[in-house]
Amino acid sequence: MNKYNKKLTLLDLGEEEVIKCLSKFAHPHKRIVHGIGDDCAVCSIRGNTNNDQVFTSDATIQDTHFSIQDTPEKIGYKAIGRAYSDLASMGAYPEWVLINIVAPKEMHLCFLEKIYNGILERMNVYGGTLIGGDLSEGEQLSLNVFATGLLPHGTAVTRLGALKDDIIWTTGKLGNSSEGKHLNFIPRIKEGIWLRENQYVHSMTDLSDGLFIDLNHIVNNTLLDAVLEIKILKEMAEIKNVLHDGEDYELLFTTPSDIENKLMVEWYERFDQPLYKIGKIEEGNGKIKIRDQKKDYSIESLHNHHF
Amino acid sequence: MNKYNKKLTLLDLGEEEVIKCLSKFAHPHKRIVHGIGDDCAVCSIRGNTNNDQVFTSDATIQDTHFSIQDTPEKIGYKAIGRAYSDLASMGAYPEWVLINIVAPKEMHLCFLEKIYNGILERMNVYGGTLIGGDLSEGEQLSLNVFATGLLPHGTAVTRLGALKDDIIWTTGKLGNSSEGKHLNFIPRIKEGIWLRENQYVHSMTDLSDGLFIDLNHIVNNTLLDAVLEIKILKEMAEIKNVLHDGEDYELLFTTPSDIENKLMVEWYERFDQPLYKIGKIEEGNGKIKIRDQKKDYSIESLHNHHF
Repeated sequence: MNKYNKKLTLLDLGEEEVIKCLSKFAHPHKRIVHGIGDDCAVCSIRGNTNNDQVFTSDATIQDTHFSIQDTPEKIGYKAIGRAYSDLASMGAYPEWVLINIVAPKEMHLCFLEKIYNGILERMNVYGGTLIGGDLSEGEQLSLNVFATGLLPHGTAVTRLGALKDDIIWTTGKLGNSSEGKHLNFIPRIKEGIWLRENQYVHSMTDLSDGLFIDLNHIVNNTLLDAVLEIKILKEMAEIKNVLHDGEDYELLFTTPSDIENKLMVEWYERFDQPLYKIGKIEEGNGKIKIRDQKKDYSIESLHNHHF
Repeated sequence: MNKYNKKLTLLDLGEEEVIKCLSKFAHPHKRIVHGIGDDCAVCSIRGNTNNDQVFTSDATIQDTHFSIQDTPEKIGYKAIGRAYSDLASMGAYPEWVLINIVAPKEMHLCFLEKIYNGILERMNVYGGTLIGGDLSEGEQLSLNVFATGLLPHGTAVTRLGALKDDIIWTTGKLGNSSEGKHLNFIPRIKEGIWLRENQYVHSMTDLSDGLFIDLNHIVNNTLLDAVLEIKILKEMAEIKNVLHDGEDYELLFTTPSDIENKLMVEWYERFDQPLYKIGKIEEGNGKIKIRDQKKDYSIESLHNHHF
């Protein structure tokens, strides 16, 4: 029986809880390598034991994810970028893309074409092939992007797997994405593939819901805590923005500490951009802590603490 | 350069023309067996030369495809059924399914759960595994269903391939779907697979936009006409409803005439339900005609003709 009151709304429960409730409808299958609960589903390929196929789908909706006043090319960047950020977090190469558009009938064709120009601009750089989609009429513009990716069998990098003493990294600065980055971020496809291939990573996810929520997916239900260095976070933006803004679309990952220098050197050589060491994994009980001059604060106490 | 006036809206152009314009953004790829322009995209599978994978995506949107007063289980039937009807029309087995939901925050969880019950009811009968999806907030309820399917390499049944003297068939009665069938139709997965396996079919599509539009996809740009027998159509419903209502979600296919009896006998044996022979393919120029006592009418003249 449902443990929830029948009259609870989606707002009462919150997105994570609703998704958990709907996840019970997913069935097991012998070809599912990783099911619901990560950034992508990972399935083995019938008749091909060398590769796995990963699947993701993301909605990009007017007034929720963009304003109709935004540049249409950037709406396209965001629609494809959200899906590609999920592929990146598994370390996958983009394969096939389908796009479902809902648009008001009074929209100009050239506006839609500019959105597609943005989508294709990203796909031309990061790979993947557009093979289909659907067009419907509706009051609000929305784009549902479905993408598949490929990677060698058994190598997908998941959220689970962080170990004690791991370093926590992000591929970019966090916070204040709503000032522009949420539309024109670079999906970290190349970085995700490189990290998977080098086998440095114990756990990885992309930063869509904000550092606090996404990092929670890594330590939740473990005997580990994630301890963040306040000094580094504050160099990125106001601490509350770094933790809670979301839509950074950077990769968040953990690696063993003994490869720190090697990773830093190779990263700069390969990508010529900074990598941010934001904290470490310690023994604990699934909490996120903020460390300030060797003193630890919970996120709750942080908001009562004057930095 | 774009041949269209920059100020043309989606309404001015119509769905088919807009899709044609957006289709130019699709890229070729050596693993695409059939690209945009059929009910599903068909791609060969990396490292597996025995099977092809087919892809479809369909939106099911409040006030366009259903009313929020409809039974939630039936909204689920329709959302999954629209995608499965596309898989059926290629002759594919359902494989993986992802569902993106947009819902207002005041919606009750139990309403969404009932929709999923409807979706899973169909998947339990017709196959396929739910592996993921996405949940977003929006004013209108909408479900975007992405589905993949499998079939032996090179055997997908497409819209193209009808030949002179072919018989035109449908798997059910057409017309008046809005009275209820549009919500609780049976996706013709079993029939589509059976027809592909028996190699009887020259061309096949599903009836979503209405007999006139969907049959047009079969004869358009060919030197063939589709000639429909008015007597048979009138036994289904009013002729205008049969031709134009849409959302029948039956299969529409053509076969050589010499297997007519064999097909009819085997069909009844296998499915214990009627198969409708609605007309034939003749030499022509891509038109649809209605035959009434050996006299042919165009669809345009039909509406001025009193039957």
